[in-house]
Formats: sequence, structure tokens, C-alpha cells
Amino acid sequence: MTEVVADVAAALAAALPGRVVTDRHAMEAYRRDQCLLAPAGRPAAVVRARSTDDVITTLRTAGDHHAPVVTRGAGTGLAGAANAIDDCVVLSLTGMDRILSLDVPGRTAIVEPGVLTGVLDARAREHGLWYPPDPGSKAISTIGGNLATNAGGMCCAKYGVTADHVAALTAVLADGRVIRTGPPTRKNVTGLDLTRLLVGSEGTLAVIVDATVRLRPLPAATATAVAAFPTPQQAVDSVLRIAAVADPAAVELMDRTCIRAVNRLTRMGLDESSGALLLVQCDGPSADQEAATCARLAEAGGATEVLHTADPTEGEMFMQARRMVYPALERLGTTLLDDVGVAVQDLPRLLAAIERTAADHGVLVGTFGHAADGNLHPTVVYDATDRDAADRARAAFDDIVAAALVLGGTITGEHGVGSLKTPYLDAQLGPTERELMTGIKGVFDPGGILNPGRGY
Amino acid sequence: MTEVVADVAAALAAALPGRVVTDRHAMEAYRRDQCLLAPAGRPAAVVRARSTDDVITTLRTAGDHHAPVVTRGAGTGLAGAANAIDDCVVLSLTGMDRILSLDVPGRTAIVEPGVLTGVLDARAREHGLWYPPDPGSKAISTIGGNLATNAGGMCCAKYGVTADHVAALTAVLADGRVIRTGPPTRKNVTGLDLTRLLVGSEGTLAVIVDATVRLRPLPAATATAVAAFPTPQQAVDSVLRIAAVADPAAVELMDRTCIRAVNRLTRMGLDESSGALLLVQCDGPSADQEAATCARLAEAGGATEVLHTADPTEGEMFMQARRMVYPALERLGTTLLDDVGVAVQDLPRLLAAIERTAADHGVLVGTFGHAADGNLHPTVVYDATDRDAADRARAAFDDIVAAALVLGGTITGEHGVGSLKTPYLDAQLGPTERELMTGIKGVFDPGGILNPGRGY
Ligand SMILES: Cc1cc2nc3c(=O)[nH]c(=O)nc-3n(C[C@H](O)[C@H](O)[C@H](O)COP(=O)(O)OP(=O)(O)OC[C@H]3O[C@@H](n4cnc5c(N)ncnc54)[C@H](O)[C@@H]3O)c2cc1C
Ligand SMILES: Cc1cc2nc3c(=O)[nH]c(=O)nc-3n(C[C@H](O)[C@H](O)[C@H](O)COP(=O)(O)OP(=O)(O)OC[C@H]3O[C@@H](n4cnc5c(N)ncnc54)[C@H](O)[C@@H]3O)c2cc1C
Repeated sequence: MTEVVADVAAALAAALPGRVVTDRHAMEAYRRDQCLLAPAGRPAAVVRARSTDDVITTLRTAGDHHAPVVTRGAGTGLAGAANAIDDCVVLSLTGMDRILSLDVPGRTAIVEPGVLTGVLDARAREHGLWYPPDPGSKAISTIGGNLATNAGGMCCAKYGVTADHVAALTAVLADGRVIRTGPPTRKNVTGLDLTRLLVGSEGTLAVIVDATVRLRPLPAATATAVAAFPTPQQAVDSVLRIAAVADPAAVELMDRTCIRAVNRLTRMGLDESSGALLLVQCDGPSADQEAATCARLAEAGGATEVLHTADPTEGEMFMQARRMVYPALERLGTTLLDDVGVAVQDLPRLLAAIERTAADHGVLVGTFGHAADGNLHPTVVYDATDRDAADRARAAFDDIVAAALVLGGTITGEHGVGSLKTPYLDAQLGPTERELMTGIKGVFDPGGILNPGRGY
Repeated sequence: MTEVVADVAAALAAALPGRVVTDRHAMEAYRRDQCLLAPAGRPAAVVRARSTDDVITTLRTAGDHHAPVVTRGAGTGLAGAANAIDDCVVLSLTGMDRILSLDVPGRTAIVEPGVLTGVLDARAREHGLWYPPDPGSKAISTIGGNLATNAGGMCCAKYGVTADHVAALTAVLADGRVIRTGPPTRKNVTGLDLTRLLVGSEGTLAVIVDATVRLRPLPAATATAVAAFPTPQQAVDSVLRIAAVADPAAVELMDRTCIRAVNRLTRMGLDESSGALLLVQCDGPSADQEAATCARLAEAGGATEVLHTADPTEGEMFMQARRMVYPALERLGTTLLDDVGVAVQDLPRLLAAIERTAADHGVLVGTFGHAADGNLHPTVVYDATDRDAADRARAAFDDIVAAALVLGGTITGEHGVGSLKTPYLDAQLGPTERELMTGIKGVFDPGGILNPGRGY
């Protein structure tokens, strides 16, 4: 351990008794998120903050020692954004997990960043409300992590991403000063939108210590339609036709590889001859009618098998097939989960490019995702013990990102840049745009201690 | 005319032949927006840009001469944000008024900034689509101005503000460099959100030269409910109860002073004994059912007169009463139109404070606005020829802004800061938040030539 490292660890331990972990084994659990590809360093110390004051003290102390600070939620991220940097301070916020208030008539909640998304949602549901953002990790990831990555999920199709449900934030700057990004009024145009700037900033600008989020009344009903199509192209055509007349909460797609993988894991008996499965969930007072319309459109669009149901349990069962995709792919080998986005009408071209990539590199790619948003998760499955296979998997991953860019899309729709996607940044952002982002970073964090080298 | 002023005017005229106005009388039309209270200077020159190249040339030339640049849309703003500054260059964008593309299946349009909002919406409607943002000035204001002020309107209740309908922007920085704020994918988390940063920045960060905006499918139906309440408090209670079970597109409130003013102007025969009128517009497949529910809730909430209709023409007639409020108030005297916001459940307290203010200063205040968003436009009506009345009007205006702040609200919900609200900034923004905003401004516009001294 270098002297500097020992210094910051000792200073933190002195300033925050009982909150600081420096034991190497105990720190292991704080070194990486769920991304296999990104490197993870060794922290000097882990602070388990319990209050805003703890956060302030951590940042001031780290700043004094010029130590990088990696803020950490639940560590479920998929881009290595919460991975430790050598000699950094990991600032863990899972201990700041109180729901500070729940205003039922005003339909807002004030939460600490370590609250699990699913916990907030469950609490809201006790009052006939819900918190829409629903990343697949909802049960295990924190609101702070969701905010810092601007997490998406299934119901973005209708309800938007995490950013669309935040009213205001309190955050601590690198130098320990506390800011409030706005009043929690529904509309506010006083000055620049600091809330939106912090959302999605992946721990590079400030540490979010509380958030006022918006809740919605629970929809009166939900209904679900499932359609199997001979080709992905037909499925996407139906997505566009559906979006022209209905407003489904979720429109999820899974390709043949995913269908097969789910069958293998669950014996759900999905039709393996289909090229793509579409799952559509509608909600609101006319959910049933809407799902029936979606089913009709899918049939007219060439679907060979179409079902729809207003029974919530049956609907949940269908959606479960989609939720099982990633675990099912993981059973087939090691996975490289990608996260690219294009305009919805370009999805067939993206899907074709993914198929070509799989063939070119001789790898298996299962593709699923949020079709109504043009946001897919092509997942390369490979044998990690085979060096050559690992290289080909990585090459396929690269080609998929490149294909999205050729179509004018994005290298990340919802998982974030982290350290995983940093090498692809220059392919998407122009030098001027990147310079502006770096300039903004400099305004918030002149010493460059917050998650340095990541995010943009 | 000073030498510097002559210099920049001459340089522009040489660089942009046929585009530059320097005649003092002709420049009169470019000196101010619709805000009476804000000062307006005398420009050195007005550039009527027709292309991005014109904008680049203007900014470079102005930068060379250290001349401030005031970007201008239609000049319908209500905060003096487009008012000329002495010796500035006014950069008028109304000549950049082409709809560059309309992608019907993708439901996006690419527009130049000078396109009138109503023109875009009308074009979208030819294809069964619409552009939701609907400021009262829709027919006469530009998309560029709407973006730069993050304009609201009536249907924000359900559809959100201008920012919620923008996919990506192209903008020119003060030094003439062109940026693109993102790919137009529905989801994108690559780097900081430059789109949201530019929206609402009131011409202080960059000049928007094109925008990719999102369109929506036209709703299947609309239905309208109108309810007259004895007191504003009862009206607001109903707003909360309605929002708990329905999702109306618009929920508009007008107080007794507004009701009377509209009656005087239109002979609509609204019930002048009521303390407040609520207008609720629902849309979508179950619009009729939803409006009926709203009507029922209003009745249960104490409304003395309730009507609802699924006939669009009749519904439009009702909404017309709301649209006539401001012209009707203008008939009564000179008006100071305010724009404050609080949490919806705090509206009764804001309304009470406004009533007290009117009594305290012996002025007439008509209050109307977007109840579901907690965004009201208390309008002080006075006799401008009476010096004392003008002073009292201004004092009342100040007190209303202060009342919103006491309730944890905002000094501007949708009209912007401009020069009108700059004096109130420190009462809402903390010094650190303001310092961050100034820092960001410095990143985009280090020379400080874009709308200096305004916005934040
Ligand atoms: C099974 C599974 C399914 C998933 N499904 C989805 C999905 O559908 N959609 C989706 O978008 N993502 C998904 N993810 C990715 C991941 O769950 C999200 O990115 C989540 O938001 C991360 O939350 P976290 O608490 O784990 O944050 P972490 O992984 O700990 O951190 C993520 C980033 O946020 C920063 N951060 C955390 N808290 C704060 C704070 N308070 N202030 C400032 N910065 C902070 C960190 O520095 C880091 O940059 C999934 C992940 C898994 C494992
Ligand atoms: C009758 C009436 C009703 C109104 N109703 C509403 C309402 O319901 N909701 C609401 O929000 N507002 C309303 N307004 C206010 C006003 O119409 C809006 O603020 C509108 O968005 C201004 O557009 P404009 O084209 O007139 O912009 P301008 O007034 O010309 O400019 C406004 C601001 O935008 C900047 N700007 C303009 N174009 C650009 C560009 N391309 N790039 C960068 N900056 C630019 C200017 O510098 C200035 O700061 C109303 C106004 C009137 C007169």
C-alpha cells in the first residue's frame, strides 16, 4: 500500500468511525458491478455512508488526498461504471435507504439514494400508486444507481425512462457543497436544468443524496398480447403499426435464439419455428380493447400465432417468458450483453446486421429488448474457456456497436457508458460535443475526483 | 453610433449581403418581445438569417467585435428574453422556416427553428399525427423560441412540456462551431444530456438551427368537462381527486375575476357567482368515459354546475372561454402577466396569497392557468396612466412571486427568466447552483456574447 493510499484510508477511518472498510477481503465485494468485460481496480477504502454528512466528509477527505471517488449503489450496473479504480475511495450508499416521505395526494416521494427501486414501488402500491421505471434489476438495484444511469426498462415505451419521473435532486459536489437542483414543481424554467444534467451522469458530476420522484396512480387494468412472427422484420412492422393506434406500456421482442433458450430453461413450449416473438402489455381503462387491437394488428401483420388476455396472472406469465431470456442465455455459456439503440423503423436493419455478425464470427447471438424504443440487447454467448471463442465474441460485440452507429443510433440506450463503452465514445460523440461534456465536468468537479475517465 | 457599433454592422453587411438591417426604423420591430416590464436596448444591426451558414457567420463576426448577440424567434416571449441589448446584434431566425422532413411511420419531424409551432402541428395533422406542445402563442411563436424557453401550454398535464417532445438538436456555439446533441433514438445515455441543457436556456448557450421533434398519433376522441365551484379551494381539491383516477390532457382553472372578464368580452354567460371554473379535457379511446368521471368527481367535490360533452365542437367552445381570459383581462387595463408554480396541493394557499396581495395593494388580479401542473398566471390589471397604480401593480407582482417562493415553488413555470425575472433569481437559486449555471455558460460561450446577463 502506497503512502497516499494509507493516508486517505486513515483519514477516512478517523473522520468516519465505524463507516470505513479497509480490509482487503471485505473490500472485494465492492470492487465490481455485473459487467464482466470491464477492469476493476483495488480501492484504498470503502465508506459505507449513512447520511449526507458522511458523504460530505468522504468527498472532502478524498479531495484533500486527491483520491478518486467511485460512488456505488447496489453494483448491478452493466457497464463497469461502479467498478473500483486503483487506490480510489468507494463510496457505498446502500446504507442510505430511507423513504423520507410519501405524499399520496401530491403523488411524490422523497427517497435516499440507497432505496431499492422495488421497495419504493411496493410502498407506493400500498397507496394505490406506483413508481413506473422498471429496469430488470428493479428488485436489486438502487434509485441512486437508476438515476445515475438514467435506467430504462420495459414500460419506457409508454412511461419514459427514470429521468421522466424525477422532480428534483439533492446532491453533494466534489468539494462537499450541497446543491438542490430545483423546486419539485411539475414545471420550472428557472435557469439551466441541473436535474437532467445529473441524471445519467454516472457518478461523474456529483453524489445524489436524495431524490424527489413522481408516482402515478395504478392503472385500472392491464392486458397482454403475444404474437409469434415468421420473421423479425414482420414483428417490427407490427410494432410500428401498433404504435400508430395504441399506446402500450411495453412492447418487447425476442428472437429465435432467445425463444429456444427460454424453452430449454423453462419448458414454456414457445413456438421455436417462429423468427420472433412480440410481447405487448397495455394498461389503463381500455387495456383489454387496446390489447385486442394489438393482437389484430399482429395477425394482419403476418403473425402465425396470436394470443391476448385481460387476466393479469396469465399476462404476467407471458411477460415472464421475456424476463427469463437473460438467465436462459446465461445457461448456454458466458454472455456479453450489449445495449444499442436505433430508430424503431431501423430495427430490421439492425437485426439483419446482428445476424450477419453472428455468422461472420461464428458465435451465438440472442437478441431481445425494448422494441417500441428501438433499444435492443444483443447478447453474445460463448465459451469463456476457449480463448479464440472469447476473441470472436468480443469482435462480434464490437461489430454490433458499429452497426448501431452506422444506422445513426446509439452505443448505449440505457446501461450507460461506464468503462465498458468508453472506447466507443469517439465514434458517437463529435470532438466538440465531448469537449463541452468535459468542460461541464470541470465545472462540477474541477479536481476530477468523481469517477474519473468514465461516462464521456 | 459608436465606432464599434458601426464596425460590427458594416462587417455583417459585408459578410451577409441582403440579410442585414441597420435602418433604425426597420430595427424597431426587432427590439422587444411581448413583455411590457422589461427594458429594450437599441441594436447595432439585425441579421435575418436564412441558413446555418448565416448563423455561423453572424456569430463569428459578432464574436470578433465582442458584440452581444440576441437570438430572436417570433418575439412573442413574455419575459423580455429576446429584447435587444444596446449595441447588440439581433439574430432573427424567422426566415429559417422550413420543415426539413416528416417521417410518418417514425413519427418525427426535422424542422428549422423559425417554423411556427402551429404550422408544424397542422402539417402533422395531415398525416394523422400531432405535435403536442401547445403554448397559447402556438399560432404565432416559433419552435426555436418554444425550445429556448421550454414552453408549456395546456396539454402539459398529460403530455409534458416542449422538452418532452425533442429528440435531438443541432446548434451553433458562440464561436461558430456546430454541435449535434444526440442521435434521435428514443433512448440514449451516451454522455451528458446536452439536448435538455439547451432546452430552456433562453438563447444563452447556443443558437438552435434545427430540431428533431417527436409527433404522436392523433387521439381517437376528445371529451370535455366544465365545472363551476363556489371556491377555488374546492376546485383544487377536485383537481387532485381527478388526477388520482384519470389522466386528462388539460386541467385549466380560472377565477372569478377571469370569469367576469370573459363574460364582459364574449357574453358567454358564465356563472359569475362561482369562485372558480375548472375546464377538463380528456382524450384517447375512453375520453368520454374519463370526462364523465371527472364531471362526477367535480360534482362530489362541491361543484354547483357541471357539464360534460363528447362533442368536439362543443368542447372547443368551452376551452375557448379559457383561451379568451388573457385578451379579456387586457380589455380591462394594462396587464402584468405573471407565471409562478407550486405543488398542486399548495395551489389553494397560493390562491389565497394572491387574493390577499390584491387587497393589500388595491389592485385587480385575475388568476388562471394550468391547475394540474400547479402553474398559474396571476395577472395584475391596472391603469398605466396612473403612476401610483403602476407602482402598486408592480408591488403586487413582486408579492405574488414571493408567495410562490414561500410555498417552495418557482418564479417561472413556463415563460422563462429573461430580463423580467432576473432580479428574483437569487431568491430561488442558491449561490452554488447559480455558480454552476454560470460555469456551464462559460463552457459554451466563454466570451459571454450570447444573451448576456439573462436567463440565470
Ligand atoms: C439482471 C439485471 C437486469 C437489468 N436490467 C436493466 C434494464 O432493464 N434497464 C436498465 O437500464 N438497466 C438494467 N440493468 C442495469 C443496472 O441494474 C442499472 O444500471 C441500475 O440502475 C444500476 O443501479 P445500482 O444501484 O446497481 O448502481 P451501481 O451499479 O452501483 O452504479 C451505477 C452507476 O451509478 C453511479 N451511482 C450510483 N449511485 C449514485 C448516487 N447516489 N449518486 C451518483 N452516482 C451514483 C455509480 O457511480 C455508477 O456510475 C440490469 C442489471 C441487471 C443485473
Ligand atoms: C398570447 C400569448 C400566449 C402565450 N402562451 C404561452 C403558454 O401557454 N405557455 C408558454 O410557455 N408560453 C406562452 N407564451 C410565451 C411565448 O409565446 C413563448 O415563450 C414562446 O416559446 C416564444 O417563442 P418566440 O418564437 O416568440 O421566441 P422569442 O420571444 O423570439 O424568444 C424567446 C427566447 O428564445 C430565444 N430563442 C429564440 N429562438 C432561438 C433559437 N433558435 N436558438 C436559441 N435561442 C432562441 C430568445 O433568445 C429568447 O431568449 C405566450 C405568449 C403570448 C404572446
